[in-house]
Amino acid sequence: MNGKKLNQLKELIYEINDIKMATAVLAWDQETYMPKGGIQDRAEQLSTLNKISHGKFTSSEIGDLIKELKSEIKSIDDESNDVRLIRVLNRTYNKAVKVPASLVAETSKACSIGQQTWIEAKNKSDFSLFKPCLELIIELKKEYAKIFSPYASIYDPLLDDFEPGLKTTDVKKIFNELRPQQVKLIQQIREKKEIDNSFLFREYDIEKQLGLGKDAITKFGFDWDRGRQDKSAHPFSINFGIGDVRITTRLDKNYLPMALFGTLHEAGHAMYEQGISQELRRTPLGHGASLAIHESQSRLWENIIGRSKAFWTYFYPELQKTFPKNLSDISLNNFYKGINKVKSSFIRVEADEATYNLHIMLRLEIEIGLMEGSISVADLPSVWNSKMKEYLGITPKNDADGVLQDIHWAMGAIGYFSTYALGNLVSVQIWEKINQDIPDISSQIEKGEFSALLGWLRKNIYAHGAKFEPQELVQKVTGSKINPAPYVKYLSEKYGEIYSL
Amino acid sequence: MNGKKLNQLKELIYEINDIKMATAVLAWDQETYMPKGGIQDRAEQLSTLNKISHGKFTSSEIGDLIKELKSEIKSIDDESNDVRLIRVLNRTYNKAVKVPASLVAETSKACSIGQQTWIEAKNKSDFSLFKPCLELIIELKKEYAKIFSPYASIYDPLLDDFEPGLKTTDVKKIFNELRPQQVKLIQQIREKKEIDNSFLFREYDIEKQLGLGKDAITKFGFDWDRGRQDKSAHPFSINFGIGDVRITTRLDKNYLPMALFGTLHEAGHAMYEQGISQELRRTPLGHGASLAIHESQSRLWENIIGRSKAFWTYFYPELQKTFPKNLSDISLNNFYKGINKVKSSFIRVEADEATYNLHIMLRLEIEIGLMEGSISVADLPSVWNSKMKEYLGITPKNDADGVLQDIHWAMGAIGYFSTYALGNLVSVQIWEKINQDIPDISSQIEKGEFSALLGWLRKNIYAHGAKFEPQELVQKVTGSKINPAPYVKYLSEKYGEIYSL
Repeated sequence: MNGKKLNQLKELIYEINDIKMATAVLAWDQETYMPKGGIQDRAEQLSTLNKISHGKFTSSEIGDLIKELKSEIKSIDDESNDVRLIRVLNRTYNKAVKVPASLVAETSKACSIGQQTWIEAKNKSDFSLFKPCLELIIELKKEYAKIFSPYASIYDPLLDDFEPGLKTTDVKKIFNELRPQQVKLIQQIREKKEIDNSFLFREYDIEKQLGLGKDAITKFGFDWDRGRQDKSAHPFSINFGIGDVRITTRLDKNYLPMALFGTLHEAGHAMYEQGISQELRRTPLGHGASLAIHESQSRLWENIIGRSKAFWTYFYPELQKTFPKNLSDISLNNFYKGINKVKSSFIRVEADEATYNLHIMLRLEIEIGLMEGSISVADLPSVWNSKMKEYLGITPKNDADGVLQDIHWAMGAIGYFSTYALGNLVSVQIWEKINQDIPDISSQIEKGEFSALLGWLRKNIYAHGAKFEPQELVQKVTGSKINPAPYVKYLSEKYGEIYSL
Repeated sequence: MNGKKLNQLKELIYEINDIKMATAVLAWDQETYMPKGGIQDRAEQLSTLNKISHGKFTSSEIGDLIKELKSEIKSIDDESNDVRLIRVLNRTYNKAVKVPASLVAETSKACSIGQQTWIEAKNKSDFSLFKPCLELIIELKKEYAKIFSPYASIYDPLLDDFEPGLKTTDVKKIFNELRPQQVKLIQQIREKKEIDNSFLFREYDIEKQLGLGKDAITKFGFDWDRGRQDKSAHPFSINFGIGDVRITTRLDKNYLPMALFGTLHEAGHAMYEQGISQELRRTPLGHGASLAIHESQSRLWENIIGRSKAFWTYFYPELQKTFPKNLSDISLNNFYKGINKVKSSFIRVEADEATYNLHIMLRLEIEIGLMEGSISVADLPSVWNSKMKEYLGITPKNDADGVLQDIHWAMGAIGYFSTYALGNLVSVQIWEKINQDIPDISSQIEKGEFSALLGWLRKNIYAHGAKFEPQELVQKVTGSKINPAPYVKYLSEKYGEIYSL
């Protein structure tokens, strides 16, 4: 490739990346420390920065450079960083310039009103209030998707925004295979005696909870020189470069798992970003590969490690020592069972590991139905409730605990949900491969040794950033594409043992 | 004025303001919470945002609009916000576009190297190491100033960057009048018995110190819905809009005044920004009028209020109650004397109210001498030491405690120092006026009532933002321009009483 043009393009891309990272700092501050009086100024600052970075990215200067450099790429299979950068830029540029500014503005407005209305509808538990807003959002999303026709499914372009390269037919196939097996597992568990995890709801000192989470992720290998932890109403991880990756934590003094597993989850996201190769910094490759791959890492550290017997064999003595009054009467085995209790519940974000994916599948089917036209917005409450009954065996009493529980659709984030479940599947595929490469991994974890694990993840996944598309990366790492079989096996073995199935 | 063009210009100005405020958020974060690994990314982000805002501001689009709108201003005396905005923009635009990018880049590089070298020179207490850097910086500053010739003094353009409209001849006159009187006062005090303030160096719990500072500024009227307080290595105040004004505090468990008066000082700056009229938001008028006016407010709250007998009559019982072990043996009167102890010292930032301005005058005379050519960089250590002896009666033992103590020159901030002393003068001019308008102000303060005071400051000073130039504002508020007489009277009365002069 023409080195001079490439450098020219990179300089432009670096600048856009800097603006986006600055935007992220402002967003982080808004969720952690900003006084409430700052909201109007902050909204304007964010809007201005977004406008500038969008304007710069969609400039013909960048378009021409991408086009010219792309034409010089000799082999499509070339895995050099530069070739991959051009490919990613080409894809995102072509998507960005095709969407008319008027549609962007209209969608932004509809979602802004949508979110306000959603809050009201949720408070009143009345879906009919939100219905017209969602209808408009779905219409605008259809208009958006149609820009990218032809496609096999009108849902494809939405999915592609979150999981580059993934198709609706792929996710349908994956989830059709997964669903009946996961539904069956839940049914089997429902027939067993309920696990007593009431000890998790005792009073746990907030600062001690924070300290424990910090100890755990320090052991994992979270790099505090390149990160920090703060409190916020909703936990998240965010980064402003590979050298500054932050997590936030929500604390509940009467529910131990909230902060603890939340911290492990966000640290999983954060260690991914901390592990990206310096060579990719300041470019779109210098971030995680996709939401699903990101979620595979948060879930790996939160669930596969964080809810494993091996980890608690190592960490439970510290937990007990920190909260002797609450936990001296709870054995390791009962603690382990308690944090892995399975019970169908209405709210996705409170769901356990075994039921979680079913919440996602329900949403995914509804989204595809809405986009393809087989489900109408008006039907949502009844569709929701009948699917809840079918998959989880329970029916929400009202819209607030049902179809209105998530903000995603009001935000226009159609296509997002599947990434949560795909992340779970990928996490286990990766875990199987780790067990092949590091056969004594579980006994390492029992001893509190995580460096071989983190080293493996860094080398095989983190370092690559967004250089590979999600399916390509999973194939490279595990030898097959995203595949539900390992996950089903994992759930069956883990919960088979816990519930003596 | 042409309303359409004016709105066009305002939209451009709003955007630039948003970028600058975003830059401030990044700077705040860097000083408070950023992990050390973030430094490289942050430097790039700040550089990119600065480049974008500079590029936007110096565009011919803005230049043409300013020129056109300025030609339509009918009377120079018009005090409408719009007319004042155009005047300020015209002045700053003309300054910004006149400076060649090469000079900006060269100066930036010289100061970057200058700061690194200054740190080394200060650590080794060896001015000769820093000498070549400072020589280059002075040369570049001369080159910069010459762009704006003709002028009465080559120092004028530098001063104008910090105090719009103020001339070298003005500050010379002010300080020539002030210096002998302040020197005489210090000499008189030196002959008196030294005040014992050793109780200020006892151990004071850090969190309790923070709490006390918070209580005090809450009473003053600091608006926590539109501000917050954090810790940092060097205290500062910063704002990201009128609705989000923050202060930071440095704490020393073995020196009570550090955090306490630092908090009052920064809150003074912050309340100024919080009090600016909403009509001026998102424009260059929506900030304090100048550094000197800003300093007049920090000093008013820190010194005139915060080190007054009236304030401690109200607040000392709370302080004593918070630190009974440290202060139960200290009477209000001895506490008051202790926090107002006068003693010549080498370091400006540790200087008391009565000696502080002498530190500034010394620097100002050196700066003017360097720019006008009557002092050479090579002579600085000896010039410094002889002036210290003349004004403060002491001679630094080494360069680190003398000519190398401040970072300002290494940063290229020539013209900055005088604003500290001018702020002190203005604070007393304003205080005299307040006493005329609110005759019982001192008894209000004794009762912990600050709302009339804050209301007066908001109405007469804060609301106007940067609409008026500093001299114009002082004239408007007090009836005369910046004038040292009230300050000399204030010092003589206050310290005459404390030291029985």
